Amino acid sequence: MNAQRPGARMRTAVALGGGHGLHATLSALRRLTDDVTAVVTVADDGGSSGRLRRELGVLPPGDLRMALAALAADDDSGRRWGELVQHRFGGTGALAGHAVGNLLLAGLMEVLGDPIAALDEVAALLGLRGRVLPMSRDPLDIEAEVTGLGSRDGALIRGQVAVASTPGRVQRVWLRPDRPRACPEALDAVKAADVLLLGPGSWFTSVIPHVLVPELREALIASPARRIVVLNLAPEPGETAGFSPEQHLAVLSQHAPELRVDAVIADVAAVPVPERLQATAAAMLAPGGRVHLAPVAAADPVVPRHDPAALADALGVVLAELDTDTGLETHAGPDVHAGSAHTGSAPHGSAPGGQETRRSNPWR
Amino acid sequence: MNAQRPGARMRTAVALGGGHGLHATLSALRRLTDDVTAVVTVADDGGSSGRLRRELGVLPPGDLRMALAALAADDDSGRRWGELVQHRFGGTGALAGHAVGNLLLAGLMEVLGDPIAALDEVAALLGLRGRVLPMSRDPLDIEAEVTGLGSRDGALIRGQVAVASTPGRVQRVWLRPDRPRACPEALDAVKAADVLLLGPGSWFTSVIPHVLVPELREALIASPARRIVVLNLAPEPGETAGFSPEQHLAVLSQHAPELRVDAVIADVAAVPVPERLQATAAAMLAPGGRVHLAPVAAADPVVPRHDPAALADALGVVLAELDTDTGLETHAGPDVHAGSAHTGSAPHGSAPGGQETRRSNPWR
Repeated sequence: MNAQRPGARMRTAVALGGGHGLHATLSALRRLTDDVTAVVTVADDGGSSGRLRRELGVLPPGDLRMALAALAADDDSGRRWGELVQHRFGGTGALAGHAVGNLLLAGLMEVLGDPIAALDEVAALLGLRGRVLPMSRDPLDIEAEVTGLGSRDGALIRGQVAVASTPGRVQRVWLRPDRPRACPEALDAVKAADVLLLGPGSWFTSVIPHVLVPELREALIASPARRIVVLNLAPEPGETAGFSPEQHLAVLSQHAPELRVDAVIADVAAVPVPERLQATAAAMLAPGGRVHLAPVAAADPVVPRHDPAALADALGVVLAELDTDTGLETHAGPDVHAGSAHTGSAPHGSAPGGQETRRSNPWR
Repeated sequence: MNAQRPGARMRTAVALGGGHGLHATLSALRRLTDDVTAVVTVADDGGSSGRLRRELGVLPPGDLRMALAALAADDDSGRRWGELVQHRFGGTGALAGHAVGNLLLAGLMEVLGDPIAALDEVAALLGLRGRVLPMSRDPLDIEAEVTGLGSRDGALIRGQVAVASTPGRVQRVWLRPDRPRACPEALDAVKAADVLLLGPGSWFTSVIPHVLVPELREALIASPARRIVVLNLAPEPGETAGFSPEQHLAVLSQHAPELRVDAVIADVAAVPVPERLQATAAAMLAPGGRVHLAPVAAADPVVPRHDPAALADALGVVLAELDTDTGLETHAGPDVHAGSAHTGSAPHGSAPGGQETRRSNPWR
């Protein structure tokens, strides 16, 4: 369906994730292209989303809503409706904690009987140029094998909240139902992408689930797009407590051993030993792939968040470098830039002539 | 601000009421003109509206929502969003019974901090050409003096639900706070109207409250617009149990003795003794005013509802007749048409020349 390489100009980008991490990626990507699709986890069982899912049987809307808000038009109407969908009712009553956008999405899903139509309707309301899609049309559940919870190793924990907050060590996660169907529209978006972004986000509960939907995993693996993993800024208490950057990468690879990526982006201050990350990445990197360290964290010291502008800069640099390298030169070792370090391993095999052909319709 | 008489073409119409009655009036008016403003009671304390009002302190949104739905654009988008705002969550959970539009309005009122801005936002969403406004910017309460509840006559009952469902006989209603300010935008709309409609609807709790807001009552009384009262199809169990059509009119007049109206429209099958209604109306009718009986009930036998098309026909006939009569002829007695009976009492004093002048800007 698509075999374009992005070149210096990004065209069709798909970001897979959930929650605040996906919000950051989308906020960065919209600075680079208008053609952004979010593919969102639907396994949340906590908070407003969990309550709506249990009460109404709809897809948990929270992560979808946050992705929509990240892509809202940057005009009066987009900002106003963006603020509304993100607004949470206060107090201690029945509505306390519900985001208005969650209720709106839940209502639209019931009325239209189709989560994709509901998302597209809110997208139109917010003036989105891109699209927000669920990884699956049906709510999913996460289960995890967790060690360190006492005498019985390998305990099974069920539910996103339980997994995300376990005091034990997550060894492996999987989905229920076991082999869920991917949302067809999300699958099409992944297949048509020039650039695929995975992470940042709650690693076991928002990022890794994407490689646990068989059709999605296969599409990610088979795609000719640039595949970029953006690592978290810090381990999360609970699911990734004590995890180093390379451990994040290792558990992703453990859940999708065939997945090769073109770049791993990490915050320069969040990687204490770049050589270890490079060593772990080496097993995952596609030919020509690299680790790119750059200052991508927001200045806010309270909650670690990616800075959208800085992340966009890093993405732009990585994509330009990948493009420049493709078929043109060979990176044999570390190549350190000011403020960033990246390592190429081998060139892509494409010839420039082939690229030209594939770029013949740059705005498709 | 406005001194136009509507003539055969209705231009600016304001309908005052609440609930299903107002929905019917608006559905009729939109067949006659694009310039419709709804002025809506805000004293509801029951159902989804009551819960939201208590939990969030916002205006009870239900009657406002229903008016918005009645004026939604007759296109795909208007119908889709109209269906959404009217959709109620089912089940038995925390959201059960809440209409999505109520939650949307409540959220917008919180985010925008202004109920009028919130209503205008949903109006834009639904493609309204008209406008929906609250009678007051602040939630109000209804109190009633009720007799027949046992030994103590003249009991005080508080709250719309309590008044609407009392087994006693409502003698008088008033608002708390005692002399609420009218919503300025609603006041402006009433002052600018060519046609003012009051009723149908829950008589003591949706219709009469409009004449209990001092500024609104004064504007209704002072307006040069056509004032038309549309009577209910049947007494309502509770607040108007056993009421005849003329009793409805009498209690309205009792709450606003200075109010004069140009027409009283009633369903021909709902008026057992037209002479009695005519006699009661006589005290309220302006010079040239009339009682108009016509078949305006929907065919549905379960719930008495006005048929929008039939009500629009009746309104059109009444307005055309009032216009024809103005300054041109004198009705001295009953003038019975096929399917309708109306009685004019005296002509308007306006000369045709003056009308021409006032009609010089027919599309203002």
